[in-house]
Amino acid sequence: MQDVLNYIAEHHDQHLKNLADFLAIPSVSTDKQQVPDVAHCADWLADYLRGIGLNNVVTEATAGHPIVYGEWLEAGPDKPTVLFYGHYDVQPVDPIDLWTQPPFEPTIRDGKIYARGATDDKGQVFLHIAALESHLKTNGTLPVNVKVLIEGEEEIGSPNLTPFLEQHRERLACDTVVISDTAMYAPEMPSIGYGLRGLAYMEVTVQGPNRDLHSGSFGGAVANPANVLAAIITRLKDDFGRITVPGFYDDVLPLSEEERAEFARLPWSEEKYCAELNIPHSYGEFGYTTLERLWARPTLDVNGMWSGFTGEGAKTVLPAKASAKISMRLVPNQDWRDISEKFENYVRAIAPPTVQVEVTSHHGGNPVLTPVDSPGVQAAMRALEQAYGVKPYLKREGGSIPIVLTFQQILAAPVVLMGFGLETENLHSPDEHFDLSNFRRGIEATACFYAEL
Amino acid sequence: MQDVLNYIAEHHDQHLKNLADFLAIPSVSTDKQQVPDVAHCADWLADYLRGIGLNNVVTEATAGHPIVYGEWLEAGPDKPTVLFYGHYDVQPVDPIDLWTQPPFEPTIRDGKIYARGATDDKGQVFLHIAALESHLKTNGTLPVNVKVLIEGEEEIGSPNLTPFLEQHRERLACDTVVISDTAMYAPEMPSIGYGLRGLAYMEVTVQGPNRDLHSGSFGGAVANPANVLAAIITRLKDDFGRITVPGFYDDVLPLSEEERAEFARLPWSEEKYCAELNIPHSYGEFGYTTLERLWARPTLDVNGMWSGFTGEGAKTVLPAKASAKISMRLVPNQDWRDISEKFENYVRAIAPPTVQVEVTSHHGGNPVLTPVDSPGVQAAMRALEQAYGVKPYLKREGGSIPIVLTFQQILAAPVVLMGFGLETENLHSPDEHFDLSNFRRGIEATACFYAEL
Repeated sequence: MQDVLNYIAEHHDQHLKNLADFLAIPSVSTDKQQVPDVAHCADWLADYLRGIGLNNVVTEATAGHPIVYGEWLEAGPDKPTVLFYGHYDVQPVDPIDLWTQPPFEPTIRDGKIYARGATDDKGQVFLHIAALESHLKTNGTLPVNVKVLIEGEEEIGSPNLTPFLEQHRERLACDTVVISDTAMYAPEMPSIGYGLRGLAYMEVTVQGPNRDLHSGSFGGAVANPANVLAAIITRLKDDFGRITVPGFYDDVLPLSEEERAEFARLPWSEEKYCAELNIPHSYGEFGYTTLERLWARPTLDVNGMWSGFTGEGAKTVLPAKASAKISMRLVPNQDWRDISEKFENYVRAIAPPTVQVEVTSHHGGNPVLTPVDSPGVQAAMRALEQAYGVKPYLKREGGSIPIVLTFQQILAAPVVLMGFGLETENLHSPDEHFDLSNFRRGIEATACFYAEL
Repeated sequence: MQDVLNYIAEHHDQHLKNLADFLAIPSVSTDKQQVPDVAHCADWLADYLRGIGLNNVVTEATAGHPIVYGEWLEAGPDKPTVLFYGHYDVQPVDPIDLWTQPPFEPTIRDGKIYARGATDDKGQVFLHIAALESHLKTNGTLPVNVKVLIEGEEEIGSPNLTPFLEQHRERLACDTVVISDTAMYAPEMPSIGYGLRGLAYMEVTVQGPNRDLHSGSFGGAVANPANVLAAIITRLKDDFGRITVPGFYDDVLPLSEEERAEFARLPWSEEKYCAELNIPHSYGEFGYTTLERLWARPTLDVNGMWSGFTGEGAKTVLPAKASAKISMRLVPNQDWRDISEKFENYVRAIAPPTVQVEVTSHHGGNPVLTPVDSPGVQAAMRALEQAYGVKPYLKREGGSIPIVLTFQQILAAPVVLMGFGLETENLHSPDEHFDLSNFRRGIEATACFYAEL
């Protein structure tokens, strides 16, 4: 392994130069005029993968932009197989005026490389490639079997990834998926994401009278759909912030003591959090810390609500109907279809007989959890500690990353999120950049990761 | 009195013809192009009042359309003084295509006279004038002192009435105000309105974080303003439909047994009411009938409510704020400023410390009650029974009629609502009409009313 680390050190300038070449290609996936640029980027990448010694490298055509695929399976059937996923497409550059330098002329300033895609996700993709290159060029082999899948449509919602995964389920079979497209918890705090929340997104409409009524002529004799909706929303949670939908918590995996201790290790300033949002206090389910609430506990939020007269001034109307969009964030092992059904049944059950209630499901997705003691997470832990010199932090995400769920569902493999970005690196904004010390340590860490699996 | 009734019978055709002349003047107050027509209508009316023998008849200029005033005060200081209020302006005629005949070419069909303003309010104004004429032409006197005030801006909100009343407070002083600009409860059911509800109209805004947040990244740790607003709205009423604002009912005058018996006399079909509104059940404060709830009990309704994402589909946003317009209908002797203040204090008291809450008052108005045993109501009771041959019904209104409150406040006189219209007479719509049998009996009833006072 020391040979590999030596290679990484010796070739750092070359890797930086190659990363700059990669960043210079304006692979904006959403812009129809840049289709040739995206294709050119895919070709550049395929050439690079061939150059470092991967086999069967192809740019697979899809209904949209191509998927670049390559593999090295010579470690043999006794060794695990890891699939690395990333994306080579980038966000648009607007507002272009706010960039300090042209977004596709990569520039190094203050230990950071500035360019569109620097942190999201070309920089993080390239450090994996550099790590694989370092192994192959040093030893002629990789420690494990590796499959590399880099798509060109992540920034437009990966519309062709699911069909591709389904079609190539056998070819892509693996023991672990690794993705580097997220952020570290904070600078110098390498972290591993091992859980994502799921989502069940519902809409409730309360229908009262067949038309808007004069609130003087009818007020007091007709159930008001807006008042009824407010009461339904209120009855969805108790005074302790717990969701009252029967059976809602049945499948919730409780936080382990180890997880709670791990989250508690993370620096957290309640004051700073509230000040940044300008709220007097944070608020959530009784008995949990803010990070626990965000990452490991389900929740329910009104996302939108509307009824009656919403303009300036006053109109004395008793509205005919009222609606709300209500979504629930789910945690392992809740199932979004089951929760959506329970929600619908409960809302119907508590709706008063004075109105008609309609409940619909917009969509949903299941939560994701990769066991902390799985080989992938354990390998990532050791690798990050070697590269950064500190014990890495185990974290989850409050939101969903649809592709993670897709991988877990189709390939049935645990997903490890090993992010080297920082939340301050302006992803999707002008002056996107990537910290070069994380680029360097990222190459080392991923090189170790492939060795530790 | 029999002489007066004979005069009414003998001159019915002439009265109808004169009403038709009155209706033929297109006095649409909202249309700037029709300012001369409105002025012409005022002049026609003033001439008519002079012709029947009223004194000091003037068309008083205002900042808008003129007010027509006349009086007959020769009954002497021992006799009561009654002020009759009506309006000679009418609603616009659009949609003109839906009229069976031109709106200003009065036409008699099936015992009804069709024209814009027939029931609202020229027909009802003219029956008072015909009654006064019948007294004066028969006896040369009126049984009481009478002041007649007919404005030309009711359909545009009476912007110049309040200043006029304030300026001429002495000149308009009276013991009773009578208005005929409402509807009977139903055909053949003459009725007297003796109460109106008041209004306190508020707006509540719940401010959470300083921006819309991603519901995945923040959901569960930040109080959601829409959920908080729903809880506040829910806490404004208890499970029995009673409003929970402390002190809200302190000044509510309870319904007397006589009033409840009187309301119960009115035909009421709960089934028909619900079917017409397409609601499964009516709903209101526990322990009261629907008419009691509508007319004599205060209530609280959300008039509008909005927060977050309200478009098609789904957006996973945790909204920065949520607002609702909430109004309360008030009954005697509640005071709208007192109630607005109590509402504000209560909402602030129940608002959780996790958000900032803003409460503002849009406007309000006090309820009106004319004692049933007041001379005006008692005279109207006797008069209607004589004209219709049935005991008239005492009713209230669920809404507010701002001018009624204005009269009561400025002139400090009880207001009697003696309506001869029917709710089916298309007021404000095409083919507005007025039942000629009610026109005829209205002249008789008002002639008796002035005699019975």
